[in-house]
Amino acid sequence: MQQVTFNRPFRLESGIELPHVSVAYETFGELNPDRSNAVLVCHALTGDSHVAQHHAADRAGWWDLVVGPGKAIDTGRFFVICSNILGGCRGTTGPNSVDARTGVPFGADFPVITVTDMVELQRWLIDHLAIQSLAAVVGGSLGGHQAMVWATRYPDRVEHAILLATSPRLTSQAMAFDVIGRNAILRDPNFHSGQYYDKSSRPEVGLALARMLGHITYLSRESMTSKFDATRLSPRDVTTEFEKIFSVGSYLAHQGHKFVERFDANSYVTITRAMDLFDIGDTPEKLLACFAATSCRWLVVSFSSDWLFPPEQSRQIVHGLIAAAKSVSYSEISSSYGHDAFLLADDLSGYGGLIEGFLRADDSVEAPPARSATTGATTSIFAGDRLDHDLILELIPSQASVLDLGCGEGELLSRLRAQGGSRRLVGVEVSEAAIRQAVRRGLDVVQFDLARPLEAFGDRQFDVVVLSQTLQSVSQTEQVIDEMLRVGRWGLVSFPNFAYHKLRRMLFEQGRSPKGTGIYSYDWHNTPNCRFPSILDFQDFCRGRNIRVERQVYLDTETDRRITDDPNLNADVAIFLITREK
Amino acid sequence: MQQVTFNRPFRLESGIELPHVSVAYETFGELNPDRSNAVLVCHALTGDSHVAQHHAADRAGWWDLVVGPGKAIDTGRFFVICSNILGGCRGTTGPNSVDARTGVPFGADFPVITVTDMVELQRWLIDHLAIQSLAAVVGGSLGGHQAMVWATRYPDRVEHAILLATSPRLTSQAMAFDVIGRNAILRDPNFHSGQYYDKSSRPEVGLALARMLGHITYLSRESMTSKFDATRLSPRDVTTEFEKIFSVGSYLAHQGHKFVERFDANSYVTITRAMDLFDIGDTPEKLLACFAATSCRWLVVSFSSDWLFPPEQSRQIVHGLIAAAKSVSYSEISSSYGHDAFLLADDLSGYGGLIEGFLRADDSVEAPPARSATTGATTSIFAGDRLDHDLILELIPSQASVLDLGCGEGELLSRLRAQGGSRRLVGVEVSEAAIRQAVRRGLDVVQFDLARPLEAFGDRQFDVVVLSQTLQSVSQTEQVIDEMLRVGRWGLVSFPNFAYHKLRRMLFEQGRSPKGTGIYSYDWHNTPNCRFPSILDFQDFCRGRNIRVERQVYLDTETDRRITDDPNLNADVAIFLITREK
Repeated sequence: MQQVTFNRPFRLESGIELPHVSVAYETFGELNPDRSNAVLVCHALTGDSHVAQHHAADRAGWWDLVVGPGKAIDTGRFFVICSNILGGCRGTTGPNSVDARTGVPFGADFPVITVTDMVELQRWLIDHLAIQSLAAVVGGSLGGHQAMVWATRYPDRVEHAILLATSPRLTSQAMAFDVIGRNAILRDPNFHSGQYYDKSSRPEVGLALARMLGHITYLSRESMTSKFDATRLSPRDVTTEFEKIFSVGSYLAHQGHKFVERFDANSYVTITRAMDLFDIGDTPEKLLACFAATSCRWLVVSFSSDWLFPPEQSRQIVHGLIAAAKSVSYSEISSSYGHDAFLLADDLSGYGGLIEGFLRADDSVEAPPARSATTGATTSIFAGDRLDHDLILELIPSQASVLDLGCGEGELLSRLRAQGGSRRLVGVEVSEAAIRQAVRRGLDVVQFDLARPLEAFGDRQFDVVVLSQTLQSVSQTEQVIDEMLRVGRWGLVSFPNFAYHKLRRMLFEQGRSPKGTGIYSYDWHNTPNCRFPSILDFQDFCRGRNIRVERQVYLDTETDRRITDDPNLNADVAIFLITREK
Repeated sequence: MQQVTFNRPFRLESGIELPHVSVAYETFGELNPDRSNAVLVCHALTGDSHVAQHHAADRAGWWDLVVGPGKAIDTGRFFVICSNILGGCRGTTGPNSVDARTGVPFGADFPVITVTDMVELQRWLIDHLAIQSLAAVVGGSLGGHQAMVWATRYPDRVEHAILLATSPRLTSQAMAFDVIGRNAILRDPNFHSGQYYDKSSRPEVGLALARMLGHITYLSRESMTSKFDATRLSPRDVTTEFEKIFSVGSYLAHQGHKFVERFDANSYVTITRAMDLFDIGDTPEKLLACFAATSCRWLVVSFSSDWLFPPEQSRQIVHGLIAAAKSVSYSEISSSYGHDAFLLADDLSGYGGLIEGFLRADDSVEAPPARSATTGATTSIFAGDRLDHDLILELIPSQASVLDLGCGEGELLSRLRAQGGSRRLVGVEVSEAAIRQAVRRGLDVVQFDLARPLEAFGDRQFDVVVLSQTLQSVSQTEQVIDEMLRVGRWGLVSFPNFAYHKLRRMLFEQGRSPKGTGIYSYDWHNTPNCRFPSILDFQDFCRGRNIRVERQVYLDTETDRRITDDPNLNADVAIFLITREK
């Protein structure tokens, strides 16, 4: 660990000045000659600068899973910096630092600080290291808050921002837990108004209670069940004066006990207050304004069972970034491990894979030809090549911005990008695995459910919204089409034609539920499709809804021909370019 | 409030004896001459005997919404009893009672008690009131635990058991909150090992912290957001020494402050420990054994946003009751109000409606003829009468036990019941409103999702499992059929025939996605159907899966005729009686 002291006043957001400040930090890997490979990792509430081991014999780092040689944040490639945050208790200025004006530790007189103050001190460190631009700022939870402040406050100094399990502000529920934790500390008789450093006893009970509470919120109900339920009346034999009747109790007692040995109660109060005060907005408008000036690429990752920083809060961030027309990818990792998931090995292939792909993404990589059979993208159900993509490409005006709903691994978007230009290309996909692949290709893909409105996207935000071979698998047909024509000037819909002659004959002559090839190759009882329109049906649908068909192209994919003669009979795939009548 | 003292030893489950015990209780309404209309309401952790107002000028009761003249638990009809629980602090023996052996309050020397002990003391009270059998025992949360103990311990003394927001045992997460609350009390320096009654200060900080924590768990994240998020930095001006920076903090401080005025810390420790020790089983086998001897009818109600006693725990109870072949109805109320929902007005029409219907149910009520247009049952999509029911009734052997999947408001089950006999009839339904109607008819209906396996039901638990006009709207076709033939000796499947001549012609001649009448009267884009089998398709399906077709009946519902000639062409509805080949 290194430490740098700045012997000049550090002005807090509140206007209060600290006469001098120190920062403790660690670095990993080598800074390259043009100083362009620095990655700043921001730690969460009780983390520290020791993000990773420096060598095999070093003590474990808190994110060894992600940071190290050959890992997702590859220290063979990046110069990783992690500093203890302002207000902490591990070498960076905080309540346990001596106040030069009094000669004793600040204690509870340490001023109220904000996440912006934490970032500002990191900025002094980065300046000190003579680094102009950070290749990436990465953080989970409170670390994500710091990363957002970095990107919004210093837009020209951040190239990538990676946010894990974070939020625009804490939920009232999360704040309530913090409030109770602080009350436990502040009302502990050993708190002594924060001036306990020279006392024989410290507010250890209050701090331990706060930590116990925190631990519940970091886990999920499901993970607590699997950890404690089978042996609920078998507490571990830990040394504690806390209740030890139940196994979950001995676990919490142990966690509380360990924590008071390494953490300072004043820091806990200071940092959790900064978290509770953090607030970049609770409306799409505020978030748009917040992100408007940023210029980095964003990766946002949430975890399904995280109830402290729930996925809907990550989606708020993503909505704000989309509204502000920023480059963003988003994935919700299916996880049972709660808020802590981003620190654990169990979902590493998910979040680690995204981080790695995002940092390695090379948009010069060509679209791979055939799709992998193993990735399990749900929306692309052509047997092999996407013949319809050629025609869709023809129908999309050159340089049009495109939103691809159900984009899979980004085949169509990659081909559009290969056409060059600077138009905006965004994909929406539901499969985590497909998103990882698309992110690796350097595409912007967000994980949304097409069964819900596209609330992230503004009116007419794109020239063309594509729904390619997805219509038949979404039951909210009308809503999807309405949303396409709200968000895009044009909608481009391709779907299999249920009135294709082979399918008609199968029902009429054989009396069997139609089954064909490709998208219709399923049996009646196992098809992922739930909508079976013919070309005539879709035309009627548009006619009845004030939707104008601009172009229509029909294909027989079995013979690879365009169809002009009686397409409702002879085409198995239809492509419609539609728009809302004025 | 009345109080009765029993001057004889009360033996606890632990073997410890209390030399004498007192019970404080209130009653509402009049006991009828044959003493058969008593309803025992069991209160939760911090409740008391004042369940309702005795008159308009009386102070509010905690369940005035439900208990009173003309209400769901109608005091014009029932004699309602509510007693303060053992271990409490409101007149029933508890830690603040004087220990006759020492002349001072028990304090922390009050023995560890269990929910069974609470029930046992209630039983003494019921004996004292000379009531042999309770028309109902009703309780939410810990009150539900008591109701379960009543029904299992005194099966011949309970006619109806109503459980709200309860569980077979606490989750490890819920226990963890209790542990921290108790630690806050036990480690409060003013706790004085529980002997604080004669001290100038009591463990008010610890008790208030425990209560604050409890309040978070009683609400949902969603309800906290709507309560506090808009004005998060506007704390109420409450008198408190707790932190008051955030509005959620002032709310918690106020709740904590109010609570210490009315509740005793030793009681809080005693009762929460009893809750944490409560455990009627964590496996279907244990729950079956627990419920095996009960003879009451059961109503189980959960609330979707309750994360303290989550719906999956209510389902565990229901699974145990079903496995034990007991009469049970179950509904999960869609609610945003968390665990507290059963105490609030917002979902009263849901849970109150179920309680009222369950207590009023009259199984002599005839099946009403036409279905109400307003109830919105999702599975019954025949336009008017259910002609297929007549045929289904013919196909079901007399006295066969029947499970009806997608039973709606219970039309078919009512008709089966009207045939007389004592066979078991159970419905599964997804619509809350339909379940309320079925419960009002005195039927056993449980809310399960047919997209998931019927894990509640054992192998061959029924003679016939009916899936009437529901096959086409469930996408897990194979699983549903497999489950039917696991749970039933026979499966009875009725579905619309997609190869009906009119539908065939529509696709073949007109090139449009088939649309007919009744169940096929939807457009391609808004149909609730997602499976479109013909009769031939279904026969093939059976043939390929070792399923024998015992009987098949075909209908043309347009002309109200049975079809024997080319049914795949001429019938619009098919009914199959199937069984698994040996």
